[in-house]
Amino acid sequence: MESNPPAPSATIGLTGLAVMGRNLARNIARHGHAIAVHNRTTARTTSLLEEHGDEGADSGGRLIGTESLEEFVAAIEKPRVVLVMVKAGEGTDAVIDDLVPLLEEGDIVVDCGNAHFTDTIRRTEQLEAHGLHFVGTGVSGGEEGALNGPSIMVGGSDRAYERLGPIMESIAAHVDGEPCCAHVGEGGAGHFVKMVHNGIEYADMQLIAESYDLLRSVAGLEPAAIADVFEEWNKGELESFLIQMTADVLRHTDAGGHPFVDVVQDAAEQKGTGRWTVQSALDLGVPITGIAEATFARSLSGHTAQRAAARTMFSTSPDEQRVEVDRDTFVDQVRAALYASKVVAYAQGFDQVAAGAEEHGWDVDLGQVAKIWRDGCIIRARFLGRITEAYTDEPDLTTLLTTPFFAEAVQDGVDAWREVVATAARAGVPVPAFGSSLSYFDGLRRERLPAALIQALRDNFGAHTYQRVDRPGTFHTAWAGDLSESEQ
Amino acid sequence: MESNPPAPSATIGLTGLAVMGRNLARNIARHGHAIAVHNRTTARTTSLLEEHGDEGADSGGRLIGTESLEEFVAAIEKPRVVLVMVKAGEGTDAVIDDLVPLLEEGDIVVDCGNAHFTDTIRRTEQLEAHGLHFVGTGVSGGEEGALNGPSIMVGGSDRAYERLGPIMESIAAHVDGEPCCAHVGEGGAGHFVKMVHNGIEYADMQLIAESYDLLRSVAGLEPAAIADVFEEWNKGELESFLIQMTADVLRHTDAGGHPFVDVVQDAAEQKGTGRWTVQSALDLGVPITGIAEATFARSLSGHTAQRAAARTMFSTSPDEQRVEVDRDTFVDQVRAALYASKVVAYAQGFDQVAAGAEEHGWDVDLGQVAKIWRDGCIIRARFLGRITEAYTDEPDLTTLLTTPFFAEAVQDGVDAWREVVATAARAGVPVPAFGSSLSYFDGLRRERLPAALIQALRDNFGAHTYQRVDRPGTFHTAWAGDLSESEQ
Repeated sequence: MESNPPAPSATIGLTGLAVMGRNLARNIARHGHAIAVHNRTTARTTSLLEEHGDEGADSGGRLIGTESLEEFVAAIEKPRVVLVMVKAGEGTDAVIDDLVPLLEEGDIVVDCGNAHFTDTIRRTEQLEAHGLHFVGTGVSGGEEGALNGPSIMVGGSDRAYERLGPIMESIAAHVDGEPCCAHVGEGGAGHFVKMVHNGIEYADMQLIAESYDLLRSVAGLEPAAIADVFEEWNKGELESFLIQMTADVLRHTDAGGHPFVDVVQDAAEQKGTGRWTVQSALDLGVPITGIAEATFARSLSGHTAQRAAARTMFSTSPDEQRVEVDRDTFVDQVRAALYASKVVAYAQGFDQVAAGAEEHGWDVDLGQVAKIWRDGCIIRARFLGRITEAYTDEPDLTTLLTTPFFAEAVQDGVDAWREVVATAARAGVPVPAFGSSLSYFDGLRRERLPAALIQALRDNFGAHTYQRVDRPGTFHTAWAGDLSESEQ
Repeated sequence: MESNPPAPSATIGLTGLAVMGRNLARNIARHGHAIAVHNRTTARTTSLLEEHGDEGADSGGRLIGTESLEEFVAAIEKPRVVLVMVKAGEGTDAVIDDLVPLLEEGDIVVDCGNAHFTDTIRRTEQLEAHGLHFVGTGVSGGEEGALNGPSIMVGGSDRAYERLGPIMESIAAHVDGEPCCAHVGEGGAGHFVKMVHNGIEYADMQLIAESYDLLRSVAGLEPAAIADVFEEWNKGELESFLIQMTADVLRHTDAGGHPFVDVVQDAAEQKGTGRWTVQSALDLGVPITGIAEATFARSLSGHTAQRAAARTMFSTSPDEQRVEVDRDTFVDQVRAALYASKVVAYAQGFDQVAAGAEEHGWDVDLGQVAKIWRDGCIIRARFLGRITEAYTDEPDLTTLLTTPFFAEAVQDGVDAWREVVATAARAGVPVPAFGSSLSYFDGLRRERLPAALIQALRDNFGAHTYQRVDRPGTFHTAWAGDLSESEQ
């Protein structure tokens, strides 16, 4: 390990060497950058240098181990770029508090953890008061992505991106020569976009899970046969990382020869970003029903005692609700339902990004967001290119659903989608994400919604007033009196 | 208006004389209490005294007008009880800041506004530091309830309730001689319970709206005929304030003779308590899908531009998706679906109250909560008595769904419920609340959930580990390697 180098020798630094930080640092070194690395306990720094001390040797990059935070900061060229990759929350605040006194005006602190965007907004203001840049950055792709090319969503100022961007773009995944990394917007935009990415990931996985459940319970296919179906689906419009992975997982058997999916406990866990996404969407007034149902479905799966009670009370024999379907037809209907529901989930997610950008005054290019999700991240998928095209053609698009490509996709699949939701209802298979997506579609396209009745009731019990369809103004009816209408 | 009475002459005081405050004050005076009233601008105090100065004369109660806050406080017997009925948020903080210096140890400040329970928790701590009691109190029933008997959910300390309770109980609605008012729990419990009440109200109204939509769009009934159906339903298990009100609203025609429900704009508004309920449920990990869908359905209805775009792109002629149903059978199926979905919505809401109580250390009697909702509030309904019975029989009930009465109700209705959701999907009628409730029911009662697949995927892309069904421990599979399993 070098000690107290006489002059700064690193173009960038990274503190926090758990697996994500290690992999990100190695990726940066490999791409020709000299990177100073630091960890609170030096054992991790030592082991990283021992195991990967020659990382980047081919490209002119290298890992520079440092022991103290002072040594770490001194090793980085000014204006310094310091990546922070620690557990989100108080951990991040503690590192920032330690770093700030050591930094100089114009230095850039980059939080690559899974911070809540409101914390990022707060920290940005806090560091700006010290003349420092703070850049909340979403990094997706897990450990493997961090090492070999993640999708990187960078927030913060233009100025900071000038210095930081080229390095991050070099280490990101690339599609057709273009990096899956961009300055998505100012302030907390990077972490906001990453949050919605994760929310969409929840919806994507729930839709896949419902598809699997239907193919198994209704079409009667075994996991290996369902793996074949997903493999086939992955050759078409559904082509994506998660669809391929589902095929792999369903084909896998454990050491005892049992289908792997059958030996895993059916209680899905969560780390909070789905929840954050839905809470933010509620504040923004954006109906992201697919993500909400996916988040609640995970909660439900973990309510062991309730499930046991309900299972005992409402058990049905497997045949009781058997619905007869033509297997091949049904498999294809599920594919269409999955695709249409997925389009809805993405339309809802992009609506939320647009609403968040407007609320917080960030200039977010939605087409660019789709573009940098095409590789490196968990929701990488072929059809993201179509989303980029849609927003390129029409940057102020009202909803993705009505762009020609997606409208045609949904229109083509809508009958199958209806049939799948109807069949699931009859068969007793829960389809919260399929069902809510279809209701969203039908709600959006409907001439009149029964929301009119809700407004009428609200005026009746709470004098909340209403608007009329035939003339402007705000009205109230004297429900407890002579039923006359007055303009408010 | 009296000025500077020589000795305190009021047993209670109320500041904030907008319509809710006025009505609450009049209700209190009518029940034999001398109440000091105050408003920031004295015009409202003057007009209240002018219009209702003799309120309570029959019962020994009276309204005592005061001009300054000092005069108001001086007029109340110690320990003082001061009801605050101002716009929630900064308004409440401002009044508290003005009041605190004038109060003495042991005095009780009661916030009867629609505060967020976390604000109530904060204010309780703040006032306790001054030796004062703070009592967040939910008051439901709108203007009419405030005047003639609301449902009152009182939080705060036992000590404060000893002084405050008898007055509030006297003015609340009564059922079989029992007041719809109780000390539901300490701290923020009153406002928390009121928040969930409002969330359930959202779900209730959305379910009613979907029922109306199906009866009109699928069964082809006109509003007046649907009014008859609701009138009929109100004689049975669905008997409730909102069902009767729906009949009244659907029967109403405007001055031009048009069905009222057709002239009201179909964009439902919201004041935020539905949103708060869902956000809190996400934090607590309680799947309240019915309330969430209801909240998002209101948001969707207000997205005018998206709706216009979708309507143009996906319009269908009225006959295109006509589904043939036997009218009488279908009407009865919708009734069953409404009842079953309503049971789910209440089961979810009571789960949230239980989870909130546990999280915050409040001792909430769920049976008592149902009891004080039986009258005075918006969701008052016959079947709340059954909920009280269920929690009285089994205070630590796992879920309302599996108690004999509700289990039988759901079991009886489940085939109809399935048919309604299936029919709606085919007919293109959005049923977010019916559909999500059925999926919740099916999810809860299912032997195996596809959440197992989600856990497997999470382990694959994020090394998030999993549990096995056949032995304890936490495991990870080397997905990118030899597929071996290791215990973590």
